[in-house]
Amino acid sequence: MTEGSGEPGGSAWELLLPAVSAPSRRRGRTLQSALRDAVRSGRLAAGTRLPSSRELAADLGVSRGLVTEAYEQLTAEGYLRSGRGSGTWVGDAVRRAASAARDLAPRGAGARVDFRPGTPDLSLFPRTAWAAAHKAALSRLPHQALGYPDPRGLPELRTALAGLLARRRGVVADPERVVVCSGVAQAMTLLGFVLGARGMRTLGTEDPGSPEPTALFASAGLRTVPLPLDAEGLALGPLAASGVRAVVTTPAHQFPSGIAYSARRRAGLLEWARAVDGLVVEDDYDGDFRYDRAPVGALQGLDPERVVYTGSVSKSLAPGLRLGWMLVPESLADEVVERKRTMDLGNPSLDQAVLAHFVTSGGYDRQLRRCGRAYRERRDALIAALAEHLPGTEVSGIAAGLHVIARVPGRWAPRRPDAVGDAGARGAAGGAEGAFLARAAAAGVALRPLSDYGTARAGDGDVRLVLGYAHLTPAGIARGVRLMAGGARGDDRAGG
Amino acid sequence: MTEGSGEPGGSAWELLLPAVSAPSRRRGRTLQSALRDAVRSGRLAAGTRLPSSRELAADLGVSRGLVTEAYEQLTAEGYLRSGRGSGTWVGDAVRRAASAARDLAPRGAGARVDFRPGTPDLSLFPRTAWAAAHKAALSRLPHQALGYPDPRGLPELRTALAGLLARRRGVVADPERVVVCSGVAQAMTLLGFVLGARGMRTLGTEDPGSPEPTALFASAGLRTVPLPLDAEGLALGPLAASGVRAVVTTPAHQFPSGIAYSARRRAGLLEWARAVDGLVVEDDYDGDFRYDRAPVGALQGLDPERVVYTGSVSKSLAPGLRLGWMLVPESLADEVVERKRTMDLGNPSLDQAVLAHFVTSGGYDRQLRRCGRAYRERRDALIAALAEHLPGTEVSGIAAGLHVIARVPGRWAPRRPDAVGDAGARGAAGGAEGAFLARAAAAGVALRPLSDYGTARAGDGDVRLVLGYAHLTPAGIARGVRLMAGGARGDDRAGG
Repeated sequence: MTEGSGEPGGSAWELLLPAVSAPSRRRGRTLQSALRDAVRSGRLAAGTRLPSSRELAADLGVSRGLVTEAYEQLTAEGYLRSGRGSGTWVGDAVRRAASAARDLAPRGAGARVDFRPGTPDLSLFPRTAWAAAHKAALSRLPHQALGYPDPRGLPELRTALAGLLARRRGVVADPERVVVCSGVAQAMTLLGFVLGARGMRTLGTEDPGSPEPTALFASAGLRTVPLPLDAEGLALGPLAASGVRAVVTTPAHQFPSGIAYSARRRAGLLEWARAVDGLVVEDDYDGDFRYDRAPVGALQGLDPERVVYTGSVSKSLAPGLRLGWMLVPESLADEVVERKRTMDLGNPSLDQAVLAHFVTSGGYDRQLRRCGRAYRERRDALIAALAEHLPGTEVSGIAAGLHVIARVPGRWAPRRPDAVGDAGARGAAGGAEGAFLARAAAAGVALRPLSDYGTARAGDGDVRLVLGYAHLTPAGIARGVRLMAGGARGDDRAGG
Repeated sequence: MTEGSGEPGGSAWELLLPAVSAPSRRRGRTLQSALRDAVRSGRLAAGTRLPSSRELAADLGVSRGLVTEAYEQLTAEGYLRSGRGSGTWVGDAVRRAASAARDLAPRGAGARVDFRPGTPDLSLFPRTAWAAAHKAALSRLPHQALGYPDPRGLPELRTALAGLLARRRGVVADPERVVVCSGVAQAMTLLGFVLGARGMRTLGTEDPGSPEPTALFASAGLRTVPLPLDAEGLALGPLAASGVRAVVTTPAHQFPSGIAYSARRRAGLLEWARAVDGLVVEDDYDGDFRYDRAPVGALQGLDPERVVYTGSVSKSLAPGLRLGWMLVPESLADEVVERKRTMDLGNPSLDQAVLAHFVTSGGYDRQLRRCGRAYRERRDALIAALAEHLPGTEVSGIAAGLHVIARVPGRWAPRRPDAVGDAGARGAAGGAEGAFLARAAAAGVALRPLSDYGTARAGDGDVRLVLGYAHLTPAGIARGVRLMAGGARGDDRAGG
């Protein structure tokens, strides 16, 4: 828009209010909008007297009624002021918005091959089947279901999930126990507020483990205490000694180590919970993907009153759907639902109806089979590439999930840190691991070391990596490992 | 399922595990599931020794490998225990779920005609257009958008909303200031946590006003202070004297009184906010529906750094979509977004893409026009019916929104409370109003008195009602008023 110069008057109004050439039925709104903009931008300063409606109408070539209406409207809104007699002035109520400088664009892609874990293959989202489920669900949904939702979730979805989880994960899943939520993250936050309101101040987490629960529980005022693992799962001695009465676990496929809790440890964990009148939170984050053995049933099935079970469609469908579930003990159910109500009144009902239809029509099982095939193929490609390009690397945690742990022998890590930038700083601190990561980054491969997920440091000089493979093609995986190995050798040929 | 009797052994296993007649590829899973159920239900008690895999296989007519596998699986899960030598026992880790007694069914319909406000006409939801927008949005959405969302909202929706709200509501709406959220309720909760973290303990609300913010802010630890209105809006004297530094308002169409804040009051409110370094929360809950005059632009447009603006599609499309927005001052933006992140990581991205498409394709404007026509007709039907059946009733707040205030002369309220039940109790307390409500309830009409929304009691003997009409047909409205009037006269003829 053109800037006005000096005090407006006469034909200068045409410059200040240039946009009244709209079709006649929109002219009034356009004039009002132009006047608002002029006041806001400061082009019309506070205290400026406006021309009479007759004058302005003549200047702009519009009807006088249009101008009168605009003056009245903007006076009602507080932009303009009318004097006792005649006359209209610019008011002094308006303040400008502070300028916003943030970037709207999504973060750009970084490395050429990114092995950092956490993302499924978003191209596997079943667009056609999902669209069909949406159409079917919307056509069947009663009008009433479009009203304010039940904060526990749509009854038909809770029933569908109860059946699905009992069948696939061996949980005890009365639909009454299911609370639909916006993914595992919201489940943690909800639980944090409920436990915080009961006076709980600390909560145990697995070390190594996901860093995410710490931030989520912190938002509810709870501090997390990292607790060590042993070969069977969360170590019971340190757990008992910590004094916590609730602990977040990933017993089916521990994140990131990939171990499955032993039967003895599962029982021991529940015994601990009963002894301290406590709670085990079971994050079944990738319970859907098992490759070489039958899935280990959920811990929740053993004692539904001591375990809060939570999962989502984030790995099986898409994180962007923000759809997950909790199975809550009877003693917590009302408080969790009330928190859910004040947090968002409940999940969107149409989304819930679509997922319910997708589950009951068999689409969800088909999707799991499809993903399982794709992810197993990628896992195999990763293991083969590591054996070929970084021989001696031990791979573990491979029976399930969307990532593996790779222990790369120290001989692959250059002794002299020679890399630059952020990775170089890590190199100075982390010795062999830092140097390996820096070389990989320079070769275009983004990696996440196991040490990112916990407090323990291995002193054996080997490099432990958490390699996510689900979002990469077999060819991309092979290329990434080749680049990584080339970086480790310090050559550039591998990039070809 | 059949209950077993006595100690299981021999062919009793067929009764305990009856469901192994599944197709062969599912038999293993079915057997495992049946075993789990038997342990959980107590039909197989802790310490019970299971038959050898050979025996059980023979009893059930399945392969021995299937039984071995089931034993191994359930042992890994903690349901069963294996001894040092041979032998498998039922473990003692399992505890039953407490029984759940709540009702899954949605609340049934109560009254024959329900004038209680708050619900739009859910049958006006544009199913066909929404399904088309879903299809279009899903086909265009890049894979990446299905990943974890931006907690601020999908950029294309923020841009679309900024344009829509600037155009329709006169707000200053840089897309950077838009935070997509799960409706106005979540906006209040988010804000409550942000202000609470800054040390705020109390917050003003309008009296009369919606009771909902009180519960939402309470969940964040803030107490609300009801502040009186006068004819121009929130009274500034009591506001200044209250000591609060933030206040929730509905300036465009006050809920429930229906007044629009005067220009002077709008300016005064902003002056107060600047003087106390405070904040005005503008709940534009029904800003989309104006009937007899141009809409009053949003207060936010006058001072975007002192006003938090919030709205949603709950009245224009459906509350079940759980889609709303906030426009936040620069000084609060980061904290609001971080709270949104820990609360749910962000709204579902596909839903956001659908709304963005619906707005930019013109579907949203069409929907608003369609609803506006329908609601205006219903409002007119209500006013006409009140004039016919309850003459002398004054109706106000009619220029906008989905409800009106009706002041029914005291002569329509029977002096002797003669009603029963809940309404009778109100009758004892509320005099003429209670008696009127009780008679209406007995005639099948659900009403909400203005006194439900505030602390003030009118002493003039008239009955003040908040009548929601949006969800009723013109015929239903006429019938409801006829029933109400019949109840007031104490006859039964009006029900015909």
